[in-house]
Amino acid sequence: MDATLDGDVVRLSGPGREQFYDNRGYGRPDDDALDLAPVEAAHLLFRGDIENVDGMDFRSFLATTDCTLDFLVYKDLRDRGFYLSPGRWRDAGDGVDFVVYPRGDGPWGDDVEYRMRVVGERERIAATSIDETLAVVDEESEITYLGVDTPDISGTSDTDLPSDVYGALLADRVVLWDPPTDLYRQAFYGRPLDGREVDGPIQCSLLEAAYLAERDVVRVDAEHAGIVERGREVEGDRFDRRLAVYRTLRERDVVPKTGFKFGSDFRTYADVESADDLGHSEHLVRVVAAGHEFAPRDLALDVRLAHGVRKTMVFALVDGSEVEWLSLSRLTP
Amino acid sequence: MDATLDGDVVRLSGPGREQFYDNRGYGRPDDDALDLAPVEAAHLLFRGDIENVDGMDFRSFLATTDCTLDFLVYKDLRDRGFYLSPGRWRDAGDGVDFVVYPRGDGPWGDDVEYRMRVVGERERIAATSIDETLAVVDEESEITYLGVDTPDISGTSDTDLPSDVYGALLADRVVLWDPPTDLYRQAFYGRPLDGREVDGPIQCSLLEAAYLAERDVVRVDAEHAGIVERGREVEGDRFDRRLAVYRTLRERDVVPKTGFKFGSDFRTYADVESADDLGHSEHLVRVVAAGHEFAPRDLALDVRLAHGVRKTMVFALVDGSEVEWLSLSRLTP
Repeated sequence: MDATLDGDVVRLSGPGREQFYDNRGYGRPDDDALDLAPVEAAHLLFRGDIENVDGMDFRSFLATTDCTLDFLVYKDLRDRGFYLSPGRWRDAGDGVDFVVYPRGDGPWGDDVEYRMRVVGERERIAATSIDETLAVVDEESEITYLGVDTPDISGTSDTDLPSDVYGALLADRVVLWDPPTDLYRQAFYGRPLDGREVDGPIQCSLLEAAYLAERDVVRVDAEHAGIVERGREVEGDRFDRRLAVYRTLRERDVVPKTGFKFGSDFRTYADVESADDLGHSEHLVRVVAAGHEFAPRDLALDVRLAHGVRKTMVFALVDGSEVEWLSLSRLTP
Repeated sequence: MDATLDGDVVRLSGPGREQFYDNRGYGRPDDDALDLAPVEAAHLLFRGDIENVDGMDFRSFLATTDCTLDFLVYKDLRDRGFYLSPGRWRDAGDGVDFVVYPRGDGPWGDDVEYRMRVVGERERIAATSIDETLAVVDEESEITYLGVDTPDISGTSDTDLPSDVYGALLADRVVLWDPPTDLYRQAFYGRPLDGREVDGPIQCSLLEAAYLAERDVVRVDAEHAGIVERGREVEGDRFDRRLAVYRTLRERDVVPKTGFKFGSDFRTYADVESADDLGHSEHLVRVVAAGHEFAPRDLALDVRLAHGVRKTMVFALVDGSEVEWLSLSRLTP
């Protein structure tokens, strides 16, 4: 059987179709002949199923066609028992490197298990471009699969709020000296200045105070500039992005509290009935500008940490006051 | 008892010394009188032990003296049963905000439990400046304590290396097509191209290959530029820093492998006898330039993750070929 490289297609003369497509899901048939993407030809060369392409063995072919990253992922998925097609054979659109079929299925069926994108750990990934499973190949050629989803951001933590609570801006936080008890206890704003005195003064973050001020709940000393201005002084644009996410979460009846101990912006509680009896927080939220580009290593760090504390890692992509949500989690195909 | 604010000292007339220093470790005595730092005076005001300073109550005093962050940490440590002194009373040097005594001890003794630095989560921390316990106050006024140590970076993973192994540079990795078996199996360089074939070709990261090339173990195709040049192309200066750390670890008989899955640069194995029978990796290493300034949130993320996977978080501070090591871990005083 002859295999020839024609541009970026390897053409196998007949009976390539029967042997490799019908039985094992390689390539795109063209009558009895078969068109293979370089990564598919590389895999057949690696396995010894074809001997050479235009005289090139596996080593020379890999060096010539530069499909090393794709090959590593393709091989890994084949080793895991999947058939898969390069996106081009399925008109899968930009960003989809492989269409992976359910185990036992192949390109002759209609079902798809994963739409997958191959990324080297040194590439950047535009936040808004993530809508398929990521296969990240690290520098030692190990592969981390990250599943992508749209999280459910809604809760039942809704409460009536008081008005005209006096707050004092102290450095980058706000103290409410005489708040109504329910503001902390039920609505879970701030934290008691004295942990043992939940009915005493509470400290709020600038975000909590800014949101409460928007809702006419809190007002600060007249001699101070507004809370938002203070937030911008200490955090720049990031403060506005975080406030947009804070507001959106509260409007969806989800309580955001700081995610500092987890290295993220927020941890969130969907169903708070009382600050004394909190359940497990469900999400860790990292806020980024919609134009952000992720380093894969940072994604690996966030997702691994969230997994370890049994939470879902959520990224909030902010464009002005608009927020889009994206959740990522480790996946074992 | 009169309390007056004089510059940045609150002076308590006698018998302040007996009541607050001798019995409870506040301030620095001056005969029968007592000098208090603002944070100490704030704590006595908060507790109601003194009524006012120059007519100011706790709220006005806090607003006037701007010692909110210090107060939060001071109070937390007092609540945990420690006596502590502001660094100035002990000539503790720059960067030491509090000298904390062992429980049951105080400023009249010589023992010190922690030398502590107070940091707001929005401040940056110069990497080379970290040499005492950090008390990081987050935006919601919760405190995370991070202990600092110098880790032991040494191992027993020493092996004889072969020479003149041929390697092919493929994109941002190097494949050794016919390596001696022990290079992977015993010395734990690279990983098999085919996971089931540990005696076949191995893939190395650019760092592994660069180090092996330095040691005259590996040579790559003549038509390619050197491995280090390729590393710089894809990572810039970061490659040189990481190579300095990789080299130092190997010279200390510690095996570094990628820390990608943990979001760090390396995980390390001190005592590798065989790649088939690896123990637990002990450290996660993040490489930074000596001039790096940490965001406290990033530190919290790294330290939390390392803790969750039972490893020690180590930062490698690189200045040229010099590497300094710093380990951080969560601490509960």
